[in-house]
Amino acid sequence: MRNKALRNLLILASSVLGLLAVTDAAAPSPGDCRPVVDRIREAGLASERAYDFLGRITSVGGRLTGSPQAAAAVELSRRLMEELGLDRVHTEPVEVGHWERGRVAEAAIVGPEAQRSTPLAVCALGGSVGTPAGGLTAPVVEVHSLAEAVSLGSALKGKIVFFNRPMDRRNPDPFAAYGAAADQRVSGASAAARCGAAAVLVRSLTFREDRYPHTGMLRYDEGAPRIPAAAVSTADADILSGRLKTDGSLSVRLRLDCRDLGRVISANVVGELTGSARPSEIVLLAGHLDSWDLGVGAHDDGAGCAAVLEAVALLHDLGLRPRRTIRAVLFMDEEFGGTGGRAYAAARQRQGERHILAAESDRGGFAPTGLAIGGEDRRALSRIAPYADLLRPLGVCTLVPGGGGVDVGPLVANGSVPAEVLVNAQTYFDVHHAALDVLSSVEPRELELQAVILAVLAYIVAQEGI
Amino acid sequence: MRNKALRNLLILASSVLGLLAVTDAAAPSPGDCRPVVDRIREAGLASERAYDFLGRITSVGGRLTGSPQAAAAVELSRRLMEELGLDRVHTEPVEVGHWERGRVAEAAIVGPEAQRSTPLAVCALGGSVGTPAGGLTAPVVEVHSLAEAVSLGSALKGKIVFFNRPMDRRNPDPFAAYGAAADQRVSGASAAARCGAAAVLVRSLTFREDRYPHTGMLRYDEGAPRIPAAAVSTADADILSGRLKTDGSLSVRLRLDCRDLGRVISANVVGELTGSARPSEIVLLAGHLDSWDLGVGAHDDGAGCAAVLEAVALLHDLGLRPRRTIRAVLFMDEEFGGTGGRAYAAARQRQGERHILAAESDRGGFAPTGLAIGGEDRRALSRIAPYADLLRPLGVCTLVPGGGGVDVGPLVANGSVPAEVLVNAQTYFDVHHAALDVLSSVEPRELELQAVILAVLAYIVAQEGI
Repeated sequence: MRNKALRNLLILASSVLGLLAVTDAAAPSPGDCRPVVDRIREAGLASERAYDFLGRITSVGGRLTGSPQAAAAVELSRRLMEELGLDRVHTEPVEVGHWERGRVAEAAIVGPEAQRSTPLAVCALGGSVGTPAGGLTAPVVEVHSLAEAVSLGSALKGKIVFFNRPMDRRNPDPFAAYGAAADQRVSGASAAARCGAAAVLVRSLTFREDRYPHTGMLRYDEGAPRIPAAAVSTADADILSGRLKTDGSLSVRLRLDCRDLGRVISANVVGELTGSARPSEIVLLAGHLDSWDLGVGAHDDGAGCAAVLEAVALLHDLGLRPRRTIRAVLFMDEEFGGTGGRAYAAARQRQGERHILAAESDRGGFAPTGLAIGGEDRRALSRIAPYADLLRPLGVCTLVPGGGGVDVGPLVANGSVPAEVLVNAQTYFDVHHAALDVLSSVEPRELELQAVILAVLAYIVAQEGI
Repeated sequence: MRNKALRNLLILASSVLGLLAVTDAAAPSPGDCRPVVDRIREAGLASERAYDFLGRITSVGGRLTGSPQAAAAVELSRRLMEELGLDRVHTEPVEVGHWERGRVAEAAIVGPEAQRSTPLAVCALGGSVGTPAGGLTAPVVEVHSLAEAVSLGSALKGKIVFFNRPMDRRNPDPFAAYGAAADQRVSGASAAARCGAAAVLVRSLTFREDRYPHTGMLRYDEGAPRIPAAAVSTADADILSGRLKTDGSLSVRLRLDCRDLGRVISANVVGELTGSARPSEIVLLAGHLDSWDLGVGAHDDGAGCAAVLEAVALLHDLGLRPRRTIRAVLFMDEEFGGTGGRAYAAARQRQGERHILAAESDRGGFAPTGLAIGGEDRRALSRIAPYADLLRPLGVCTLVPGGGGVDVGPLVANGSVPAEVLVNAQTYFDVHHAALDVLSSVEPRELELQAVILAVLAYIVAQEGI
């Protein structure tokens, strides 16, 4: 009892001292942070530890939400956080879907004669229902937008609708080009199904011409029939489109054995450097641990997880313990719609916590070019702008409004300042959601720079507020 | 005669009209350029033609100054400029050195017992003399700077001096890290030779640990003995350094059959879009056609040449003919010290010409991040700054003072404004001057973006002045 009383007294005293430290601190100048930034940079760039973390995360394989590999990644990440000496390492449960790709994804152009059958490189879109076991064969109608499909109405009945609008490579922003084409993948199946279509094929979302299909989530609308949906590689999409020009009546045979296995319990993985003065104020660094399964989710988003872990590990190893808590969260289920982010925001552990900043790394492990912060509200940007001279040598050559991500969306909706490291992602969609998203596609030094910037940002905000 | 007089009259009239057009033009607003910038961007990014040009340039192999491959590249580039429809395509002679690598570059740690011989991956540094035909064998002394070598004085007599200071990977700027280590390669041989050394080995200038030696120019001082000089791969440098820690008396055997073949005549390749109003005012876009020979000089500097060609080709194809001349120059002999740049500046054709801007692309074919312009004089920067909103979507997120390059140095000394596209070069020194500098190490879309930015910059300056 006496010991407990003494301990409580000490806790109270240190809290008071902590508050005093915050209250008494003179208004800091950005230059005061320079020695710390130098230490973080030197410690980070001296090694390629973020890449080592990425190697461990990707070693379990593709981490499809609900899969055994995702469960293995949760356990591996939790252990890794403990090894790194983070505080309060734990997992928080998330109920997620468990969709399984299966073993069969076949498609072929079938002409009037058997010898004219031409295989097409396809993969099931995430969440798709399978075809009948023997596959389905139907004539193909090529369209370039949801609106065009809808306008064709009952002409699509019984057909395979082939969405073939490419990402617009004239757009210098790959994310914008992706965003402008992704509706075909996300909503094409239900749009076609409402017209009575039998299945959809969707051109892979990449600038490159190659034979790798790129998967990704589809969303079945309530009330629309659920029809099979596959991505077709860009080169095969061109082959199919070319054949359709000379034979508008050709059919494609499609066979997918993917299936939905219901709901399972997975987890977000959480660890932190508890703040020295205001532990309930959180600076959150986030990546998502789940990935697609054609590759091993190296850029998407093993890289984000690895950068977040390295950022926190750097601060820990340097003995930096800023006033507010810096928390790493590796979210589950970003790819199927963000149940992990919603579960985290709603968890009982959030009571009494205030997330002052939430930075998500989910643009691939590429070389940083800038920092987006604060969403449309420019106040956070103006708070960080005085630190631009410290950030610029690390590659942050632009500071712009914006930031955020699927996983931190619920926190941002609750008032947290969003943030995001911007990167050179010109080649991101070469590998995104495809078999090419493997460890060797990530450059160790570029990933480490991202980790350094995250560490610096987190330190500044946790120490000085925002 | 009548025809000639008529032609002269027409030329005079069009010159007067051109001058009037310049004189009468209202002060332009940057927004007036937006439609043109959009056309350049759309035409550029719709294709990967810069990469096609790069494929043609690199198809001749490594283009060592003075070599048959360099001569082939001159002829190929001249033809390519003619195919593209450039004006006044020609070559201008440059007298250059002709150093030949030879066929033998061998090194091995030789211990007291024959079975302990350990091969080391080496290559001759550019310009090095060869060893005696049977090689030379000498004890090794490891040093980490020129000053350390000099301080050892006569202790280096008869030794192989091993310069082993790595590029400092804690520096986020790879060019700065390279610059801070390159003195060992450039000046190590003569510094050691003055102390009586027999040869030098220099740690390759790259952040990566691998077994590719990286070549590059050395400079023999007048009056110092010329001793053989080789680069050793980083992994082999570590092996050698480790062995020296346990056996300070070990020897290395080195054999190089490189040799100097005297002077030959090579050429710069020149083509342009002659200005519509002020043809003698030149906006120069430059790359260098020569390269090292271990790879095929794809990033260094086939990429710069390809970007320059594509920039001018884009403007030509779009029918854009700004007031001042936009000239592409592919220089010879950047790697051995810039005789091409000096010959161009001194050529009789320069009489009556005024180079108002000289932009060199020689930082690798990577994704652009910014634009350096004007050297230390910020006036040019302030002239371009109003166009920042047009350049930013292309990846130019920073506009800074600076710019220039070896080849355009003499023009800049004569008053031309220097410029340079800045890029994400975090992986440049992985391939720089090494066998890895091949076509597949360049990303087509990143290179195309560089070409688009060069075209936009050249158009703005040629149209609006600077």
